[in-house]
Amino acid sequence: MLNFELYNPTKLVFGKGQIEKLSELVPQGAKILLAYGGGSIFKNGIHQQVIDNLKGFEIVEFGGIEPNPHFETLMKAVEVIKTEKIDFILAVGGGSVIDGVKFISAAVHFDGNPIDILQKHILIKENAMPFGTILTLPATGSEMNSGYVVTIQATQEKLASGGSALFPQFSICDPTVIQSLPKRQLQNGVVDAFTHVMEQYLTYPHEGYLQDRIAEGILQTLIEVGPKVVENPADYALASNFMWSCTMALNGLIQKGVPSDWATHMIGHELTALYGIDHARTLAIIGPNLYRVLFETKKEKLAQYGKRIFNLSGTVDEIANEAINKTVAFFHTMGMDTRLSQYTENYSKTADFIVNRFDERGWKAMGERQNITLEKLKEIIEMSY
Amino acid sequence: MLNFELYNPTKLVFGKGQIEKLSELVPQGAKILLAYGGGSIFKNGIHQQVIDNLKGFEIVEFGGIEPNPHFETLMKAVEVIKTEKIDFILAVGGGSVIDGVKFISAAVHFDGNPIDILQKHILIKENAMPFGTILTLPATGSEMNSGYVVTIQATQEKLASGGSALFPQFSICDPTVIQSLPKRQLQNGVVDAFTHVMEQYLTYPHEGYLQDRIAEGILQTLIEVGPKVVENPADYALASNFMWSCTMALNGLIQKGVPSDWATHMIGHELTALYGIDHARTLAIIGPNLYRVLFETKKEKLAQYGKRIFNLSGTVDEIANEAINKTVAFFHTMGMDTRLSQYTENYSKTADFIVNRFDERGWKAMGERQNITLEKLKEIIEMSY
Repeated sequence: MLNFELYNPTKLVFGKGQIEKLSELVPQGAKILLAYGGGSIFKNGIHQQVIDNLKGFEIVEFGGIEPNPHFETLMKAVEVIKTEKIDFILAVGGGSVIDGVKFISAAVHFDGNPIDILQKHILIKENAMPFGTILTLPATGSEMNSGYVVTIQATQEKLASGGSALFPQFSICDPTVIQSLPKRQLQNGVVDAFTHVMEQYLTYPHEGYLQDRIAEGILQTLIEVGPKVVENPADYALASNFMWSCTMALNGLIQKGVPSDWATHMIGHELTALYGIDHARTLAIIGPNLYRVLFETKKEKLAQYGKRIFNLSGTVDEIANEAINKTVAFFHTMGMDTRLSQYTENYSKTADFIVNRFDERGWKAMGERQNITLEKLKEIIEMSY
Repeated sequence: MLNFELYNPTKLVFGKGQIEKLSELVPQGAKILLAYGGGSIFKNGIHQQVIDNLKGFEIVEFGGIEPNPHFETLMKAVEVIKTEKIDFILAVGGGSVIDGVKFISAAVHFDGNPIDILQKHILIKENAMPFGTILTLPATGSEMNSGYVVTIQATQEKLASGGSALFPQFSICDPTVIQSLPKRQLQNGVVDAFTHVMEQYLTYPHEGYLQDRIAEGILQTLIEVGPKVVENPADYALASNFMWSCTMALNGLIQKGVPSDWATHMIGHELTALYGIDHARTLAIIGPNLYRVLFETKKEKLAQYGKRIFNLSGTVDEIANEAINKTVAFFHTMGMDTRLSQYTENYSKTADFIVNRFDERGWKAMGERQNITLEKLKEIIEMSY
């Protein structure tokens, strides 16, 4: 097992009706920036619930944070915070709104040009503006971690960063909110969380026996509830396990002490930046082909995954191959198209474009063994056409 | 799934050689009370490592905290803290030392008679003295939770309490420390952690699907590494999974959103208070008989446990019964005697004594369904003779 530090000070407030605790969770007397996305919180009644539960607080609203939030939009929020002398940010939304608020929190007191936080991957360890979240779309785990991903519109770059000062102070997770979500977003949430686990699990056999068991538990739960929750989002047992699995998939716990990959995300982010494909769907396109191209170095772990999750038997190669097929089948069950050509007609130069971009950034070796070279990257992307 | 709040601000620093980070973890300029137990930290070199890594800090030592730490001893530490104007406590030891330090932390600024904290079960939510820990004996999970158990010597009462202000600020967990532990303590650690999981898992089928999977993952890991780590404590893979499993068994995570039992611990504490039997061994004596007496209301979960952990098949009753037998067999493999009469000759009035004591305290209904009456309590204890 690798050495690790586990620190996660977010207070997670999980369950039906927990939004009623909001006024106790927000710092007393704070002037609040209420940040949200495209306005779905007006349709599902959550905006009104927030207002009702923040009586007596001074609130400034900032809506319009996009899916794959734009640096350019978020900098407008930073200006509002400075002008209005805001003390605390409340993010109400899914991963994009929460990720966006983390960047806002980082940028407000940043000494320098905030675009550097993204492009130079600067970790924020102090002087962040405190914030809390109300999660409306389970998927990213952003409600209980300190990482975020922001897109620079001007350069079409989708970049990840974070820092120990960027944990939400609290996150309210009420599983009943998923009832009003479109089916497509529920599908995305399941596949996103599933792939988060895979990035931290599907590497090579190691001494993190307990970490593997916990990762497998999340995968099993998502396979069990995923297809059902999409059809019955009002079923509280399904909704709560879906939501809790999404948080546990990326709150930092399962990656402690073990290697992780993350190349599927790095490639997937490019597909979103280039073609606007939903984040989860890019993962469903890339993940299985990455396992195929890296088969020789991942097959031992693929076989463990195949045995424990899908009860497969056979040789290591047979189980590993079939485990990839089962994963693709699960993604299909979750409504994912798993080929790039199903999303865009203009895919033919994608591999070259992304390879060049990674080359320019100096990203020449990825994955848990740093053995995903630019040649392998090209092969993965072309296999995904 | 039940509503829950998850908050755990302890910074866990896990791995080989992590004690070197001690001087960065302790508040700069603090005057430190170094609290420990019977002196094993002198034999295994940890005391010297602590001193070496706290150069420049003013340190006052307080040794002699007993297994099942005594209120009377801990109050002496409270006096030392007041006299010496201590700012921070460093607990170096196992669960007893850490539990003792939590009580000390609670008592220093307590407004009233500190014995009330125990006897009136007062939860400490503010004004605790900050403390960190260096774990030398994996078992209790105290290094990453806010609960503790202290024995009042004068009344032979072993009482549990806690509070959100009593999380360690940090805990250093180096799995190599277990190399110098006696086999008996390693055995105890595995069974203690195993039973912690069982208290939070072995209840009835519920909607906490993910929580069950994680609990099962810890049980599987302990069954896998437990018998081996006792024989090969220098094997880092075994040691690290053992230590991490102990922390995860009782850091609060797996009990969120699900019912829990804890009656085995309540009864076990009495056996320790009465006969000085090791805590873990009292759990091995009581647990299986509690499952037998509560068979009708626990059998569904026993069957899930039997299927998933021991791959049993048959009817619910058959699997549930065999799962109890398998549990006893595992305890035997871990070197546990599982009958009270193997520890003391004077056991014949134990049931009556404990029933009276629980009756006096008003503890008349225990367990996840509150269906462990005093009659059932008597039956469990008599079955354990």
